[in-house]
Amino acid sequence: MSKRYRISLDAMGGDHGAAVVVPAALRALRDHDDIELVLVGREEVLRRELERQGAAPGDRLRIHHASEVVEMGEPPALALKKKKDSSMRVAINLVREGEADACVSAGNTGALMATARFVLKMLPGIDRPAITTTLPSMHGHVHMLDLGANIDSSFEQLYQFAVMGSVLATVVDGDPAPRVGLLNVGQEAIKGNDQVKAAGRLLEDSNLNYIGFVEGDDIYTGEVDVVVCDGFVGNVALKTSEGLAKMISEYLREEFMRNPVTKLLGLLALPVLRSLRRRLDTRQYNGASLLGLQGIVIKSHGGADEVAFAHAINIARVEIAKNLPAQIDRQIESMLSTRQAS
Amino acid sequence: MSKRYRISLDAMGGDHGAAVVVPAALRALRDHDDIELVLVGREEVLRRELERQGAAPGDRLRIHHASEVVEMGEPPALALKKKKDSSMRVAINLVREGEADACVSAGNTGALMATARFVLKMLPGIDRPAITTTLPSMHGHVHMLDLGANIDSSFEQLYQFAVMGSVLATVVDGDPAPRVGLLNVGQEAIKGNDQVKAAGRLLEDSNLNYIGFVEGDDIYTGEVDVVVCDGFVGNVALKTSEGLAKMISEYLREEFMRNPVTKLLGLLALPVLRSLRRRLDTRQYNGASLLGLQGIVIKSHGGADEVAFAHAINIARVEIAKNLPAQIDRQIESMLSTRQAS
Repeated sequence: MSKRYRISLDAMGGDHGAAVVVPAALRALRDHDDIELVLVGREEVLRRELERQGAAPGDRLRIHHASEVVEMGEPPALALKKKKDSSMRVAINLVREGEADACVSAGNTGALMATARFVLKMLPGIDRPAITTTLPSMHGHVHMLDLGANIDSSFEQLYQFAVMGSVLATVVDGDPAPRVGLLNVGQEAIKGNDQVKAAGRLLEDSNLNYIGFVEGDDIYTGEVDVVVCDGFVGNVALKTSEGLAKMISEYLREEFMRNPVTKLLGLLALPVLRSLRRRLDTRQYNGASLLGLQGIVIKSHGGADEVAFAHAINIARVEIAKNLPAQIDRQIESMLSTRQAS
Repeated sequence: MSKRYRISLDAMGGDHGAAVVVPAALRALRDHDDIELVLVGREEVLRRELERQGAAPGDRLRIHHASEVVEMGEPPALALKKKKDSSMRVAINLVREGEADACVSAGNTGALMATARFVLKMLPGIDRPAITTTLPSMHGHVHMLDLGANIDSSFEQLYQFAVMGSVLATVVDGDPAPRVGLLNVGQEAIKGNDQVKAAGRLLEDSNLNYIGFVEGDDIYTGEVDVVVCDGFVGNVALKTSEGLAKMISEYLREEFMRNPVTKLLGLLALPVLRSLRRRLDTRQYNGASLLGLQGIVIKSHGGADEVAFAHAINIARVEIAKNLPAQIDRQIESMLSTRQAS
């Protein structure tokens, strides 16, 4: 039998904790026979949830007890210092100890970042982790980073994000030269703040397929594969998109509910509208990678449901299969040596 | 006869120049009998365009010759220094000289900002102009600023934006206490960059109806009337929204074009889809105000069509009627004296 991918799950994290993580784990095990999962959290809670689902621990699904839980609003520094036996911390420990190949958590983002960084350490040459996710675009999808791990980013950090995002797109999509764009307020070289301009100059000289500055609307045009920005901007762009998509869905619903005729049309058009909804379904994009760590950590949306969390587990699976951290490490090393040589 | 509102138009600005501005002017004159317009630009071009439209200069539509044109990609400093007889500059001059009560331009944003600031000067207590526009929300609309006038904003400037946005919402919407939110990456006080956090503290102590930090998705929920951010973030949020709305429209079209049945449904549902498109039509939101100046300057989208440019003219009309700059001036003065007193 070929080696299975082992993934530890912070089974108490997120808005719904075990009630979502346990059924998501069972779903992922059904979907992928090459994975093994470790549910990390309060043993009695996890046993009860498994029973409720008509399942039991076994060869491919183990329970690993952890007595504490990091709360969603808890300050990261406090969680790191005080909760050494939290489900989040222990799930990450399993990665460091080689007991798991990746970890998935829907918990407090700040605490997850701080803990992952403390336990797993950064890859050499990377200052800070970046959060990245995949978004739909006009002709496929786009990778965007950072999405909120870093509030103020230096130009060097933006450059590191670009390298990591490019490797990610190559590894995940099999694209040997993904187009990398730097998010800015205009496409002319004179526009933007100092960090973005300086990062642009570094990228011009890099061996990445850097296409220059892109603007907010370019995220969705399909003209770029990797969009690089600081975490503040990325977080605002991502959440603005979520809010607008929700509003447009609501408008569409209202228009079809306007009168009996439009209601009938809405009913007839239901398969079309469902198909649209599927394409915009954020659950199929759930699972943000924390890049730059010596290990794989996937952040699920706090409010993720079973389908969404199972998708995040699959992202962990893909990154293990592709050995993403080692690939980033190799690329960073080669780019740093190129820059020193030049 | 009651006094008419006089608006100067940079008739050569934008991607289409006189070909859009002249018909838009004629449309606005038909729609509003309380306005007078001055077309500023090359006289022969404007005369020819008027003829093409079957119109002529008259009591309510004058031509004011200006020999130069600021190009869309021209560096602002150069335009300011070298093109003293540009249609943009002369249109703004007319406001300073009291020949017009407001100016509308679809030209180069940076040049418009720089020229307006140089010619009209800032209101006392305001450091820099902010660009603001209205966006649709779940229950009406929201005012957002800054949208790209300022790349890096100090906390004092964010505070000034909040005051100006609040006055704008009061004046335009008649809301005595518009809800003001500060755009951030989380709602907790510990989140965000230093400028945002410091601006939040200033706003807590202000007499504005400040509701705290809001996130990207809140722009569209209808829970806030004024969203304050720096120009980099605002520009990205705005353009991201434009890009996403376009992609969703395209998805919707694709879903209805999938096969003969869905095509028929699409045809039947055309009134519903048109009604949706109308609600999302950015033309009805065209016209961004440059706030903080001693005068009214409205920036139209460079690619605006006749309907959109005419809408920008109407925004100028409303701001003249409400005497917006004087109202901002009054509020700023009272808030500065409150802050000094406290």
